[in-house]
Amino acid sequence: MTSLQLSAKEEMVERFLDAAAGGDLTQVSTMLTHTPSLINQKGCNGWTALMFAARNGHYSVVEALLSHGCDKLSVNSSSQTAYDIAKFWGHRHISNLLCQTDDGCHPVLPGSYSNPQEIYFSREMLDRLGGKRTDNAWLDAKQSEPGTIYLLFSNLSPMVSSSQEDDSAEAEIKLCRFGYEAVKDLLLKPATTLIFLGVEKRKKPSSSSQSVERVQGPPVWFAIGTDEDAAELLKRCREKNCSFPKSANRDLLKFNEEEAGVVAQARSVLAWHSRYSFCPTCGSGTKLDEGGYKRSCLNSDCRSLKGVHNTCYPRVDPVVIMLVIHPNGNQCLLGRKTIFPVGMFSCLAGFIEPGEAIEDAVRREVEEESGVKVGPVQYVCCQPWPMPSNLMIGCLAVAISTDIKVDESEIEDARWFTRQQAIESLLRGAGPAFTVPPSQTIAHQLIRHWIGMNSNL
Amino acid sequence: MTSLQLSAKEEMVERFLDAAAGGDLTQVSTMLTHTPSLINQKGCNGWTALMFAARNGHYSVVEALLSHGCDKLSVNSSSQTAYDIAKFWGHRHISNLLCQTDDGCHPVLPGSYSNPQEIYFSREMLDRLGGKRTDNAWLDAKQSEPGTIYLLFSNLSPMVSSSQEDDSAEAEIKLCRFGYEAVKDLLLKPATTLIFLGVEKRKKPSSSSQSVERVQGPPVWFAIGTDEDAAELLKRCREKNCSFPKSANRDLLKFNEEEAGVVAQARSVLAWHSRYSFCPTCGSGTKLDEGGYKRSCLNSDCRSLKGVHNTCYPRVDPVVIMLVIHPNGNQCLLGRKTIFPVGMFSCLAGFIEPGEAIEDAVRREVEEESGVKVGPVQYVCCQPWPMPSNLMIGCLAVAISTDIKVDESEIEDARWFTRQQAIESLLRGAGPAFTVPPSQTIAHQLIRHWIGMNSNL
Ligand SMILES: [Zn+2]
Ligand SMILES: [Zn+2]
Repeated sequence: MTSLQLSAKEEMVERFLDAAAGGDLTQVSTMLTHTPSLINQKGCNGWTALMFAARNGHYSVVEALLSHGCDKLSVNSSSQTAYDIAKFWGHRHISNLLCQTDDGCHPVLPGSYSNPQEIYFSREMLDRLGGKRTDNAWLDAKQSEPGTIYLLFSNLSPMVSSSQEDDSAEAEIKLCRFGYEAVKDLLLKPATTLIFLGVEKRKKPSSSSQSVERVQGPPVWFAIGTDEDAAELLKRCREKNCSFPKSANRDLLKFNEEEAGVVAQARSVLAWHSRYSFCPTCGSGTKLDEGGYKRSCLNSDCRSLKGVHNTCYPRVDPVVIMLVIHPNGNQCLLGRKTIFPVGMFSCLAGFIEPGEAIEDAVRREVEEESGVKVGPVQYVCCQPWPMPSNLMIGCLAVAISTDIKVDESEIEDARWFTRQQAIESLLRGAGPAFTVPPSQTIAHQLIRHWIGMNSNL
Repeated sequence: MTSLQLSAKEEMVERFLDAAAGGDLTQVSTMLTHTPSLINQKGCNGWTALMFAARNGHYSVVEALLSHGCDKLSVNSSSQTAYDIAKFWGHRHISNLLCQTDDGCHPVLPGSYSNPQEIYFSREMLDRLGGKRTDNAWLDAKQSEPGTIYLLFSNLSPMVSSSQEDDSAEAEIKLCRFGYEAVKDLLLKPATTLIFLGVEKRKKPSSSSQSVERVQGPPVWFAIGTDEDAAELLKRCREKNCSFPKSANRDLLKFNEEEAGVVAQARSVLAWHSRYSFCPTCGSGTKLDEGGYKRSCLNSDCRSLKGVHNTCYPRVDPVVIMLVIHPNGNQCLLGRKTIFPVGMFSCLAGFIEPGEAIEDAVRREVEEESGVKVGPVQYVCCQPWPMPSNLMIGCLAVAISTDIKVDESEIEDARWFTRQQAIESLLRGAGPAFTVPPSQTIAHQLIRHWIGMNSNL
């Protein structure tokens, strides 16, 4: 592309980007003074002035751009921030500058933790206040407070309202929220499971609830699990299009980030209660304790009552999920199960076994499922997955062999895909080689992370 | 230190290190040709020529030292390798060179994975061969093969032999290994729990077992859990000083790395069986399946038999354990429980809750236990901990507040210690400010990792 083919505005952007790439501080500052809107303009492949300056190690230009308020979290077409680029090229002083927090504190840890993509199910809008779980007087008092919020679950599905009549994939759903008066009859029934979820974290209470909060603190949230008739339960709600979603895996991905986090917590604990009503140590019945976070055996002679035992506490199953990278660095290994939608491939995954480290579980699962041997493993991020209560531990793994031999009892296919194919699938270009899992899954985020890691720098 | 105060040999080492630090390739090569023993010599603070060259970005000197076979994993007095140093100073081409595998393959992942300290309980000497767990014919045949190895557990303690009569902390203990003939009566008893652990991974069979392996493959390992009288069981063994250790936490840390890994696996699975003999879904009895990795409900109407449910599989409890770093980067937060030996401080830790991400669990636990708020969290390494079946997920966490307010229901004290105090405690200097946990714990490794990370570069 030459300047002859550019419009006047494009030409100015090009000159600005060139000045940043070349480290010409005077030119950058002058242009910004005259045309402040240049600051976040993007050129080829979505590169900004900040990225070019970071790429070429021009510290003073980076400083100047930051002081003019440029968007340091902007990403190029390979999903890289200026920080990623500075880090990749070893300009440590610049990457340090770029990952400073807004209050100017220097980070103490090396390595990348610059605003990773937020993981669905992981936002925490509630403070769990574990210490209050044993405070029955406090819990009882909170139950009937006017600001207290109740969620209703039937058969592990939360009652939700939908913005649309049909259940198209795009429709966002919302949790139906109830006050004490609307659910107090349910609280009296013995088959009801009541879980204390926590109190809202918000620092700036909204004006509507401010006066209440001044007296009683931020709203307390509870989840109710009930086996009452679902149709009758729906009548309690005044929202439009209420329902208890039937397909957990699909419908639970339609919440906003905040409600998704609450659902992850509530559904995981309720799922535990639904399968663990009897004491595994002696077979007796159990009762619910500690705000729904403990089940205690009703047999006073039971071993589980002497000392602390995991039989009494909710179960969280750690799972490894990994994107395996080809030794050449430019292909990734994805597999598909029969139950996947047509064309979808995803990361391999499996439960961590007793006595096994995360990295060894990655190596074992990949070799079992695909026959590929793995060397180095690197943790990337994790995701709570409330079906029923998994902790998905996401890793990148480097293959040290490439021949694929699929274990058909686990998956139906596994293949190497190129970086370009992965980019096309993520951007939904024409005829991609495969469909990526939805963005709410950690598999999607691992693929995106890998794409953003190395290319186009 | 001036050259006047040095012996002739010390002077030569100093000149060699100076040449490496200054990038004088000719001088380095000439001196190595005349005096090959210079290659791994250490100067002040344990720095080698490779570290100096890596510190100052002299690629060709690093190459020359590597081609002369220098020890690239040597560490200085701050536990840093040349790789760590190159990485810290942003000499990416050098850190890439230093973390190449021996076959010359380039690593595909960025970041550090250069030979982390091995974590106790995490070495895998057995291939678990999960696919064989459902192959009852194979499992039955392997039970009576002459090469097959059985371990005996009583009350979750493995039978061990000790090199010494007394149980001093230094004495290493070994697993007592039995053949089929010695345990076949136990296998017939209904109260016996038999776990298939896996087959030995060794590639080069020792000469003694070679002929057997040629016919039958590598030895298969089983663990037996039994409630027979412990004193009677000990009579079966011909080793010296046999026992079933009473104090799990203390004695299980005395194995060599390989046996520790086997114990972690076997004890975790046996602990699950010991507390989960009844179906948590319906309270009925259960039977052992799949080589000891599954318990199936005996009640044919039970929901747990329809579909796949975690009630039937061993439980692994994920735990976060974290070294919290002061915002100034030079202090770490450690706490102590009442049950700790006098003077010992360790990392804070806690169970991950349902619906919670690793990083959020770190922040919640630190604030609950110590009142300190945490910002960025970075995964470092993990450790299976078979008391009874935890997965310890080790992180560094950066504090964003510093005031300590101890939750006395969790810990009895928490304090900031300086990097220098941590170094003194690790090196057991005179009168350290606190005692570090033993090296077999991930807490110890996290402290060591932090010490090795930044200082003295
Ligand atoms: Zn019981
Ligand atoms: Zn059952």
